Amino acid sequence: MNFLEEKILRDGIIKEGNILKVDSFLNHQIDVDTIRQMAYEFKRRFRGIEVTKVLTIEASGIAIATLIGHLYDVPVVFAKKSETANSTDDKYVSKAFSFTHKRHNNVFVSKPYLSATDKVLIVDDFLADGEACHALIDLVKQAGGEVVGIGIAIEKGQQKGGRELRAEGYRLESIAIIESMEWQTQTIRFREQPQQPLVNTSLKQG
Amino acid sequence: MNFLEEKILRDGIIKEGNILKVDSFLNHQIDVDTIRQMAYEFKRRFRGIEVTKVLTIEASGIAIATLIGHLYDVPVVFAKKSETANSTDDKYVSKAFSFTHKRHNNVFVSKPYLSATDKVLIVDDFLADGEACHALIDLVKQAGGEVVGIGIAIEKGQQKGGRELRAEGYRLESIAIIESMEWQTQTIRFREQPQQPLVNTSLKQG
Repeated sequence: MNFLEEKILRDGIIKEGNILKVDSFLNHQIDVDTIRQMAYEFKRRFRGIEVTKVLTIEASGIAIATLIGHLYDVPVVFAKKSETANSTDDKYVSKAFSFTHKRHNNVFVSKPYLSATDKVLIVDDFLADGEACHALIDLVKQAGGEVVGIGIAIEKGQQKGGRELRAEGYRLESIAIIESMEWQTQTIRFREQPQQPLVNTSLKQG
Repeated sequence: MNFLEEKILRDGIIKEGNILKVDSFLNHQIDVDTIRQMAYEFKRRFRGIEVTKVLTIEASGIAIATLIGHLYDVPVVFAKKSETANSTDDKYVSKAFSFTHKRHNNVFVSKPYLSATDKVLIVDDFLADGEACHALIDLVKQAGGEVVGIGIAIEKGQQKGGRELRAEGYRLESIAIIESMEWQTQTIRFREQPQQPLVNTSLKQG
């Protein structure tokens, strides 16, 4: 059991409807110890991979993204959400369905902040059906950049996002993957993750 | 001229209508060097003041707040905005007028994340009329906590927020205070700030 799985068991709350509340340490109140360790863990898992930019989406991905940007010493960009934003000359725009708000949101990044030379590490707190993540990938592609990795704090393993992203060939690392959870008993089963056989060294990056 | 004033002159863009765009380094793309230095500067200016929690408001305050929480090693809480949230048993709710969106937003924090024993450092990227800041202060007061300081990246010195907060007795530190700016010539004048006579030592905190 890793530090995040342990933290989820201790401080997460399971609600009816397959909802995991972690707002005591991840997406309302932020436990800096936990997200600091996450940043180090992502750096370890993505060892040898060159990153020139960290991309996330407002609001709850920003804290983790900031500490990762701090560790890598590269800029952080957060995509913004808007009900109205249209594609314009100066923005890359994509769409993502928000399950929280039950509507499609436009997701955008101003053009100067993503470029064709960027090697982007996408970061978010949750991965479920992969709506937000696919929108972020789309923005990077529109800019002609490369997604070198996707780092997720908590993946809901029974929803399709992780399966799809791995099938599409993305290097996805989720620190905790929930295999199943039950609100009546407040129990969670995590997916076993291989003792990380750490990726390639920097040699591979040339 | 301090590091932030210099950065604003180099990378900020003045738009008609008294708007300063700093989204290349502060509130869309985040330059980690700049916000790291901000975190250290706040720690210096608030030297000797005990802080148990950093409070900000989503979304653009989160990055700075995270690095400050990381430096102080205390939890960060970000207040959420909602058009609809009503006061309930489990939330502190206040209101703030958003000039960006031309409407009142509810601003809330779940009750467990602010308490009567908290010594709160409020942090945000901008201070103009002080709407968001006063809402955050209100939330801390509802919880019975104490606002020990307010740290702002950029204060618009001609708007009333800073004047009011200082008159109310809050210890407000703004790293850059804009006295005036002109979009036609892209010039900015910053308020002279005293060479910080650093506050009292930890002795004062007992």
